[in-house]
Amino acid sequence: MKLILSAAVVTSLWLAPQTVTAFTPSALQSRSPWTNRVTQLSVKKQLTSLALSSKAIDETQPFLLERRPRPPYVPGKISDPDYVRIFDTTLRDGEQSPGATLTSSEKLDIARKLAQLGVDIIEAGFPIASPDDFNAVKQIADIVGNEVFEDGYVPVICGLSRANPKDIETAWNAVKGAKLPRVHTFIATSPIHMEAKLNKTPDEVVDIAVNAVKFAKSLGCNDIEFSPEDAGRSDPEFLYRILSEVIQAGATTLNIPDTTGWNMPWEFGELIKNLRENVQGAENVVFSTHCQNDLGLATANSLAGALNGARQLECTINGIGERAGNASLEEVVMALALKGATKFQGGPGTGKLYTAINSVYITPASKMVAEYTGMACQPHKAIVGANAFQHESGIHQDGMIKNKSTYEIMTPESIGLMRGDSQSGAGIVLGKHSGRNAVGTRLRELGYDLDADKLNAIFTRFKQVAERKKGGLEDDDLEALVSDQMGRSDILWEVTGLQVSTGISGIPTATVKMRGPDGMERFVASTGTGPVDAAYKAIDQIMGVSVVLESYQLNSVTEGIEALATTRVTISPKAGGPNDTQSIHSQLGNRNLKFSGSGSDTDIMTSSARAYVSALNKLLNCNARRRAEVIAEEDKSGIGDAIAAEPMQVVEVEA
Amino acid sequence: MKLILSAAVVTSLWLAPQTVTAFTPSALQSRSPWTNRVTQLSVKKQLTSLALSSKAIDETQPFLLERRPRPPYVPGKISDPDYVRIFDTTLRDGEQSPGATLTSSEKLDIARKLAQLGVDIIEAGFPIASPDDFNAVKQIADIVGNEVFEDGYVPVICGLSRANPKDIETAWNAVKGAKLPRVHTFIATSPIHMEAKLNKTPDEVVDIAVNAVKFAKSLGCNDIEFSPEDAGRSDPEFLYRILSEVIQAGATTLNIPDTTGWNMPWEFGELIKNLRENVQGAENVVFSTHCQNDLGLATANSLAGALNGARQLECTINGIGERAGNASLEEVVMALALKGATKFQGGPGTGKLYTAINSVYITPASKMVAEYTGMACQPHKAIVGANAFQHESGIHQDGMIKNKSTYEIMTPESIGLMRGDSQSGAGIVLGKHSGRNAVGTRLRELGYDLDADKLNAIFTRFKQVAERKKGGLEDDDLEALVSDQMGRSDILWEVTGLQVSTGISGIPTATVKMRGPDGMERFVASTGTGPVDAAYKAIDQIMGVSVVLESYQLNSVTEGIEALATTRVTISPKAGGPNDTQSIHSQLGNRNLKFSGSGSDTDIMTSSARAYVSALNKLLNCNARRRAEVIAEEDKSGIGDAIAAEPMQVVEVEA
Repeated sequence: MKLILSAAVVTSLWLAPQTVTAFTPSALQSRSPWTNRVTQLSVKKQLTSLALSSKAIDETQPFLLERRPRPPYVPGKISDPDYVRIFDTTLRDGEQSPGATLTSSEKLDIARKLAQLGVDIIEAGFPIASPDDFNAVKQIADIVGNEVFEDGYVPVICGLSRANPKDIETAWNAVKGAKLPRVHTFIATSPIHMEAKLNKTPDEVVDIAVNAVKFAKSLGCNDIEFSPEDAGRSDPEFLYRILSEVIQAGATTLNIPDTTGWNMPWEFGELIKNLRENVQGAENVVFSTHCQNDLGLATANSLAGALNGARQLECTINGIGERAGNASLEEVVMALALKGATKFQGGPGTGKLYTAINSVYITPASKMVAEYTGMACQPHKAIVGANAFQHESGIHQDGMIKNKSTYEIMTPESIGLMRGDSQSGAGIVLGKHSGRNAVGTRLRELGYDLDADKLNAIFTRFKQVAERKKGGLEDDDLEALVSDQMGRSDILWEVTGLQVSTGISGIPTATVKMRGPDGMERFVASTGTGPVDAAYKAIDQIMGVSVVLESYQLNSVTEGIEALATTRVTISPKAGGPNDTQSIHSQLGNRNLKFSGSGSDTDIMTSSARAYVSALNKLLNCNARRRAEVIAEEDKSGIGDAIAAEPMQVVEVEA
Repeated sequence: MKLILSAAVVTSLWLAPQTVTAFTPSALQSRSPWTNRVTQLSVKKQLTSLALSSKAIDETQPFLLERRPRPPYVPGKISDPDYVRIFDTTLRDGEQSPGATLTSSEKLDIARKLAQLGVDIIEAGFPIASPDDFNAVKQIADIVGNEVFEDGYVPVICGLSRANPKDIETAWNAVKGAKLPRVHTFIATSPIHMEAKLNKTPDEVVDIAVNAVKFAKSLGCNDIEFSPEDAGRSDPEFLYRILSEVIQAGATTLNIPDTTGWNMPWEFGELIKNLRENVQGAENVVFSTHCQNDLGLATANSLAGALNGARQLECTINGIGERAGNASLEEVVMALALKGATKFQGGPGTGKLYTAINSVYITPASKMVAEYTGMACQPHKAIVGANAFQHESGIHQDGMIKNKSTYEIMTPESIGLMRGDSQSGAGIVLGKHSGRNAVGTRLRELGYDLDADKLNAIFTRFKQVAERKKGGLEDDDLEALVSDQMGRSDILWEVTGLQVSTGISGIPTATVKMRGPDGMERFVASTGTGPVDAAYKAIDQIMGVSVVLESYQLNSVTEGIEALATTRVTISPKAGGPNDTQSIHSQLGNRNLKFSGSGSDTDIMTSSARAYVSALNKLLNCNARRRAEVIAEEDKSGIGDAIAAEPMQVVEVEA
């Protein structure tokens, strides 16, 4: 019996978890070095990290597994039928999460992180939504879409558009500067959406879809993705028809959205299978999944799609997105990394599926997206949650000591999470004696490529904070400072002084001093129900604003009492207030605008004040821009016209 | 074409989302009234809430759908092959989440909530782990396990045990007071666990399992669940053998754990199918799933199990648990509620699956578990996340205005979440003029059945807070106060005075006054890197403790600047410090003990101090109890002996 056991060990199950990537110390450093693009590229090459191997791994001798090379990019065709493209929509669907609004510079940072990860396609935004959105997509296309890695990889940059010429033209203008531009257009195909929302007949919907694809092609775009919105609740026969027609019109990727998270995995898998079998011309396009998470099944549904032949999976970092979000990139990617070669038989090819994602960048990407969007992951979030690699019960810990594979199916290092005892260079601590160069280098190692101005601003904050934080600043602290600074690109008002007194029996009192856009300093004292309330009231008074505080959250970034505290707030304009953005924005079809801000400091009162003022500055800047747009639109026709002409009532977003 | 569309509308897909439960105003009140057990029972009867109907629903006329009656409970047999039992392990696996330690009184509260939800089986804990755990399970068995609802329903109370006589006897002693007691025993069956962790041959493992089940039976237990731990990575042939033998020994439920979250949904489904077909005596037991969430697939795997004939699904509220947690009760239950009747054909019965969960209690249960464990859900958590029913983009909002089914597959009311405009009695606000009776009544309506002492304590806090919070206290605020108070059952030290001064340029200073176990008041002033640090240092000095602050989190409970702030902290004893619990606990096989505390106040400094002192009191109380146990064990043999005799090295938990 002992023998049989050993045989089992050598064959499959026992080894399976061990086939997870393990890394040499040099590979572990890969998280860090890209001091410049050249270094990054060499790392990129070195980091041929993640693939399955059936060989046993000597746990005491971690080594790099070969990563299979990425097939060259051709829009409607993948030369290797086992290769699965990863389409990231963090910047489009993810940014639609309530309160997750990102600035252009944050979007560019995230796009760079996605390129580091090696995602095949970056959906950078919805260019028609506003000139801000247009510019953000264009910047990503022009910059990230032209940074070719050493192995020839450059991400496709994709822009979303409704199925009308203005949208499509705007999307194309935004992305066309990329080496590999893609336009993604969509229209709803479910009975309820067509009838209740679009008020169109199926025939009309087919015409609109076909014309949209033809129009995109006429602009010179040869990489066209089409999505039948709410496909998960659409009549399959109608899908066969509309998809066959858009293929003929020139669509190269057919994305199948389960827009409301309605499908069971086997149901969605069957849908993909049926589409591949019944859509005319299916062999000339790539099928894609886009699964919402309303029943917690987005990852499973995406994988069921891959099992049945989908070769593009749409997902977001940390699974953020409208409502319950999307499929999590990290879950989809790691499931394919662990099981792609053994459990996905049945579709085209050999069934040994793989992606080209560099999984060691998952943790840094997850942290950046959480920081910038303010959408924190729950501790038990799979793969990237704080507890995902924590073993609590004494019994689990005992198993881990004996053999890590007893309770872990992947190593934390394989997703770029360094254990406390790893030799990775993680755990570097910078203190008040560290210079600008050390801070800049470490930030670049963490993936933040900052220009001199931003670095200076962050370094100034670093010095202020390091002065007080005795233990020095760890990576997480530094990242919090970047996030604190990122929201400050257009500073109108700044807190220059703060004094707070509170307690159990006293009356909470705050005195705030601020410098305004005119360079003048003003100060006001105020009381409140608590010290934050008092400080925020003082700030309101100085800035002359009236807003609703939608959420307030404060976390210590690192462990220990002397931790750096990060405050995140979300605000919205008060209806009828002096800065009622809603009335301005409703003219542009945008309702319920929210603004988030974050601030970090060792003092929770200082971090709270910084976060609030950061959010207020965003609101005031946005108001100023939108007022200018409204005036401009009254004068001339332009991009904004599409929105003005087509009030949101008759359109939909979110494929 | 218009006609065809209408036909589709009337038949299936369009209607499907509309078949989601909608409730009359009287049903909506069901969340509130159980002023006493009798009222609760009548609500229970009235609330025959959730089932599928193929009839179209007039959205303007919400009405109650019939809930199918729960089949009578018989251990190894379900009279209706379509009925799926829900086994909740929030109090066992969920409590294993790092930092989620619950007090006995919190456990009892949660058990009551689970009974309100109508879960079939409550796994109340792991009685051998410590006398505290034993007592908590016994209390739940004696109280909740004897509260029979009007329709005859009473939850089965289950205790976990390793496969040895001491464990099983202890588990049985803890649960036997329940009307329906169950013992759950387990041993690992995967090659890696048997070899690396247990150091046993498969033959030995079979013997241990069979003897364990026989021993449980010999004690008079006729409801025995057996789990082959790490079944997801076990050799199926070995599973057939061991499971066939434990059935013969008397096991009535066979639980199949995917302990490391390793299986793809189709892989796990196939495993269940193969087990049902190949295990001898399979027709005389109920098959169960227990899926961990390491790849984000726990819900999908559980549902795949049900599709293939599993008729018990193990899950936790909010999906908490070791590492990435377990299947979420709310996801599993709502998926079955929405799709159970249409997409689960293939197993035994008609394939029209259903549970007896009262889904309107999902939101209150989710909130209570989040409050008590400190494990907050991410905003995009499916079903119970803050964003799950939020529609952000203007276009989605537009769809929602036209027809809610465009972007929602269930109503928030169906899970007990009341929209701002609902007529449910939610949104009641209590102010400083509200009396004890009003507060007590509302708390009972929210499901908190408090004794006079606890109500008095909470009412005192309510008055203090209401004095300062102008907008009055909403339900969430009240719940935060309950949570603040719950951790205070054994108060050793109490903060009686607090004075804090901080700001951008000053030195953060806190003066803290505390009353100790001797009734004496002491005060200390301290500075720190921030005001929280200063206050915590002062508290450390007064209490003479030295701990590590593992986490610190602060949230505003309700919206608005005058919100109530809730602070949650987790601490662990500092190794070698004056209160090094670890050295005491390691003798009992328990490592890495963490203690959590929460505090709520309008003043973030006060809430921070309350939370910290609450956690410290728990630590000191625990130390005192454990010291007594260690001494007791040196004198006599008892329950604790099992632990002392069997150091954790050779055992495992977590089926």
